[in-house]
Amino acid sequence: MAMTGVLRPGHTQLRVLNLEESIKFYTDVLGLVETGRDAGGRVYFKCHDERDHHSLIIRESDRSGMDFYGFKVLDKATLDRLEADLRDYGVATERIPAGDLLETGERVRFEIPTGHLIELYAEKKEIGDSLGYVNPDVIIEGRKGISPLRLDHWQIHGRDLDGSRDLFVDVLGFSLVERILGEDGKTDMAVWLSCSTKAHDIAFVRDDRDNTVHHAAFLLDTWEHVLRAADIMTKHRVSIDIGPLRHGITRGTTIYAFDPSGNRFETFCGGYNFYPDMQPYTWTWDEIGTAIFYHTRQLNERFLTVVT
Amino acid sequence: MAMTGVLRPGHTQLRVLNLEESIKFYTDVLGLVETGRDAGGRVYFKCHDERDHHSLIIRESDRSGMDFYGFKVLDKATLDRLEADLRDYGVATERIPAGDLLETGERVRFEIPTGHLIELYAEKKEIGDSLGYVNPDVIIEGRKGISPLRLDHWQIHGRDLDGSRDLFVDVLGFSLVERILGEDGKTDMAVWLSCSTKAHDIAFVRDDRDNTVHHAAFLLDTWEHVLRAADIMTKHRVSIDIGPLRHGITRGTTIYAFDPSGNRFETFCGGYNFYPDMQPYTWTWDEIGTAIFYHTRQLNERFLTVVT
Amino acid sequence: MAMTGVLRPGHTQLRVLNLEESIKFYTDVLGLVETGRDAGGRVYFKCHDERDHHSLIIRESDRSGMDFYGFKVLDKATLDRLEADLRDYGVATERIPAGDLLETGERVRFEIPTGHLIELYAEKKEIGDSLGYVNPDVIIEGRKGISPLRLDHWQIHGRDLDGSRDLFVDVLGFSLVERILGEDGKTDMAVWLSCSTKAHDIAFVRDDRDNTVHHAAFLLDTWEHVLRAADIMTKHRVSIDIGPLRHGITRGTTIYAFDPSGNRFETFCGGYNFYPDMQPYTWTWDEIGTAIFYHTRQLNERFLTVVT
Amino acid sequence: MAMTGVLRPGHTQLRVLNLEESIKFYTDVLGLVETGRDAGGRVYFKCHDERDHHSLIIRESDRSGMDFYGFKVLDKATLDRLEADLRDYGVATERIPAGDLLETGERVRFEIPTGHLIELYAEKKEIGDSLGYVNPDVIIEGRKGISPLRLDHWQIHGRDLDGSRDLFVDVLGFSLVERILGEDGKTDMAVWLSCSTKAHDIAFVRDDRDNTVHHAAFLLDTWEHVLRAADIMTKHRVSIDIGPLRHGITRGTTIYAFDPSGNRFETFCGGYNFYPDMQPYTWTWDEIGTAIFYHTRQLNERFLTVVT
Ligand SMILES: [Fe+3]
Ligand SMILES: [Fe+3]
Ligand SMILES: [Fe+3]
Ligand SMILES: [Fe+3]
Repeated sequence: MAMTGVLRPGHTQLRVLNLEESIKFYTDVLGLVETGRDAGGRVYFKCHDERDHHSLIIRESDRSGMDFYGFKVLDKATLDRLEADLRDYGVATERIPAGDLLETGERVRFEIPTGHLIELYAEKKEIGDSLGYVNPDVIIEGRKGISPLRLDHWQIHGRDLDGSRDLFVDVLGFSLVERILGEDGKTDMAVWLSCSTKAHDIAFVRDDRDNTVHHAAFLLDTWEHVLRAADIMTKHRVSIDIGPLRHGITRGTTIYAFDPSGNRFETFCGGYNFYPDMQPYTWTWDEIGTAIFYHTRQLNERFLTVVT
Repeated sequence: MAMTGVLRPGHTQLRVLNLEESIKFYTDVLGLVETGRDAGGRVYFKCHDERDHHSLIIRESDRSGMDFYGFKVLDKATLDRLEADLRDYGVATERIPAGDLLETGERVRFEIPTGHLIELYAEKKEIGDSLGYVNPDVIIEGRKGISPLRLDHWQIHGRDLDGSRDLFVDVLGFSLVERILGEDGKTDMAVWLSCSTKAHDIAFVRDDRDNTVHHAAFLLDTWEHVLRAADIMTKHRVSIDIGPLRHGITRGTTIYAFDPSGNRFETFCGGYNFYPDMQPYTWTWDEIGTAIFYHTRQLNERFLTVVT
Repeated sequence: MAMTGVLRPGHTQLRVLNLEESIKFYTDVLGLVETGRDAGGRVYFKCHDERDHHSLIIRESDRSGMDFYGFKVLDKATLDRLEADLRDYGVATERIPAGDLLETGERVRFEIPTGHLIELYAEKKEIGDSLGYVNPDVIIEGRKGISPLRLDHWQIHGRDLDGSRDLFVDVLGFSLVERILGEDGKTDMAVWLSCSTKAHDIAFVRDDRDNTVHHAAFLLDTWEHVLRAADIMTKHRVSIDIGPLRHGITRGTTIYAFDPSGNRFETFCGGYNFYPDMQPYTWTWDEIGTAIFYHTRQLNERFLTVVT
Repeated sequence: MAMTGVLRPGHTQLRVLNLEESIKFYTDVLGLVETGRDAGGRVYFKCHDERDHHSLIIRESDRSGMDFYGFKVLDKATLDRLEADLRDYGVATERIPAGDLLETGERVRFEIPTGHLIELYAEKKEIGDSLGYVNPDVIIEGRKGISPLRLDHWQIHGRDLDGSRDLFVDVLGFSLVERILGEDGKTDMAVWLSCSTKAHDIAFVRDDRDNTVHHAAFLLDTWEHVLRAADIMTKHRVSIDIGPLRHGITRGTTIYAFDPSGNRFETFCGGYNFYPDMQPYTWTWDEIGTAIFYHTRQLNERFLTVVT
């Protein structure tokens, strides 16, 4: 088959400092659709163009950040095979029973060398967008807030970038799409990896702070929606980190901003189509600014220091 | 791996009535980059965002239309495996030696039930876009004409749609993304198939005229580029079939037009992201107009009758 | 002063066949804001980016079409002066008392040679957009339907085009911006006139059907909003005449469609900036198709025949 | 008449440190069209959508900045009348003979209270865009660089803002469109003035540095062209001050950047339509950040300090 193995970023669990304020933010400002709440007090959201039950789960905590990062795989046979491959590779895996997350099947969870908990799963209830599957319209009216299409990717940080990169490439079948080399011209300081024709599905940055996350990204349609997202952010006085602007890496356009708990998120648009027969782009250390922020050509302090 | 098997539409060979006029059209109006000419008089082109040596080959003939449709596969092992799978399925295959097309490796060619010649190949020289692989810029200045990003898909016609659809799904690993059912509510009159996260890589339409092509499509960046493409078409008095408008199917935006030989081409933009865990959209016969042309909600005569 | 005399199209009164259905259409589909109803059963609407009380008034009738066309002038002195100028020019004028239209001052009404009733007025209550005048935001959330920025222009038809054109140019201070000449190369078959830096504020077409209207146009922000307008029209099964596409005349982009009573309206975007030191563009009879519909390069039957 | 008096910003003379480097910059990067050179070594440029002979003149100097700011008026009678009005107002005027600037008629020059030299003129040779005046196309192919539509406005600085504002409003017929009040809630710290339906044709900022300029602005078509402008700037390593982003004031989108001599320029797009019956928007001192840069909501140091 052509698209096999790991399909896409499927869900992520986010810690927020105040649940009510965050529900309001994720509903009215980011414009997600609430799809459920569970006995543990977690609240579930999906983007309007996603068909599965949820892609974002939030739970109240005294500390922001992310609990885990879930990828959907093609089917249960793939889930079993990838678990076996992980174990062969020396990675301990754990099965989380179906139903632990609402409407979600069994998950295979494991820790990667940068300290993050990654999950694979094959089943989640398809609740559809609101268009139906017969003679669908192309437009959903009355969407609120920024209203992204889907959860797109994460950028996560930790010490052993090489270990996590190799695990994703060698075991999970991701491709290296772009990289930033360190001053030595050899060491990967950051890598962008894809399991699809997207320019990236996950990015790793070398950082002493293990198991941290820089941002989760949500996909927007067009550069005009990026502008509208920035307008909505200011309207609601959302803290914007930087943007709108373009990335050198992936050529995507972007805004980085913070949710009320200080979790950074990205509203991302575009990026070229990637295929696994393509060689990666390499960025040298002196061009890191242009690589990340093509227009300012320099990193800002907050972008570099804040992770959760 | 995540992206395996068949990667994408890689090249197509088009028959044109007047070679010089066509070179001028494909260079100045469609805005492709000429990359070579071979001993047999064929001229090779690529789109500016493609890295392989060519995606369009034209040759002079007294009859317009397409000779064959080539898909790039992941690697030589995949090529061998898919050839074996095709033979197991009862399809005769032929190996065309490396070098028959400029800078292109061995091709596995076979005829599908609708009468078209399909090719698979694993190797073609990577000549890159003009950006380089180290610290690339995001923009290529001085592009001419419409200047699409890449060859995107084909719509081809023939009697035994079921046979070709099954071969693509069962042997080549494509997924069914959308379909139009006939008046009986059962028969596929048209199907859109994907081997990637694109909403389609090829479409089949049931038609008595075997081995015919409705259009090859080239990918544009944005709806604003679709407008610009239409403006350029009128500037050069290109015959426009229909557009700009939106498809119900794939939600993409489009213009259909004809090259100087009467070959229809599409300048296509957008379309949702497809994953193989998604169920297909179905269109009923009475909504075929909306399915194809979401805004006019009816098919035009020329769209229905002209194939080459 | 720099902007004097006649400022802009300010309001128009439209006849609809079914008031309730039309209120729903103008509110939910075209996305206007209802601002009042009067004792005579008329319903008033404004566009979200207009500050005056209304720009569209609808009234129930057994016949579609428009009752009158109102232009706002700079101030009461201008109103008096223009009325005097009209009388000097031999045009009979009538004063309609303040309050006849809700929140609207005295209007000077007169019939032009093509049979239409034109009105000038200097005063209408400013109710503002919803942004306020101190530290306004740039975005209004929760807008419904197509939601145009403002009433933009009309195209009206009648026999004595020359008479109406001269009256608008010689008395009201409009400039000729573009014209289509007839087969004789001399006669104006259609003219586009501006009283501002817009490419047109009104257009006249030579037509045996006096006192008819081809369309009222509402202004959209961007070509992406034009696409969205077409999507919304199909979602609500609005009858689309033609579009989205570009005009050769004004370079604007457009959709023509019909309200539930068969009144044609346009959702228009763009057009170049006009200044009164610029000479007009002329279109010859053989290029009338390209002039009106730059992409199809031909007029469609319905566009030519339907006026109300 | 409807558009009378002062029509628009017509030309500006800029001092550059290195003529050859600047010609290359204004031709290849900003994408203007060179239209002439005069005996004094000055080089003339126009934007592709301007019809008059030039809008930018550059001359070599050891100091960057602008020499004068020229507005086109409707006709010679207007020029005479405005000169008389200026003298009545107590402003000394000087007539610069026709031909001093290439293809330009007599200019009336005067100094305004903020120290700037303003010019009015009625005649400049119309050389047209490249589209012609009969059956014009809508698109110019092969444009280079950023390629703005036209010179749009200036922001100029000086001590006696009140004096310059009053002169523009009371004598030249401009309207106050937006203002930023100082901490006292009374004093205008900056004002945006229009002589047309544009949201502004000139802006004044209160500043101890008399006769200085913050930026000249060039008009772009769309937000997508603003992105492209930023991409081209980085491609050519143009120093970007800030952007792309939106202004609170005017709602326009923008990039500020510097030419090779350190002269700031703006690539501006959009802004609402203004009419002289509209009351101004007021911004309070604490919201000055949002007023200027709607997304960052704060001014950057360089924006505040650099004028030429
Ligand atoms: Fe990201
Ligand atoms: Fe297609
Ligand atoms: Fe119109
Ligand atoms: Fe400005």
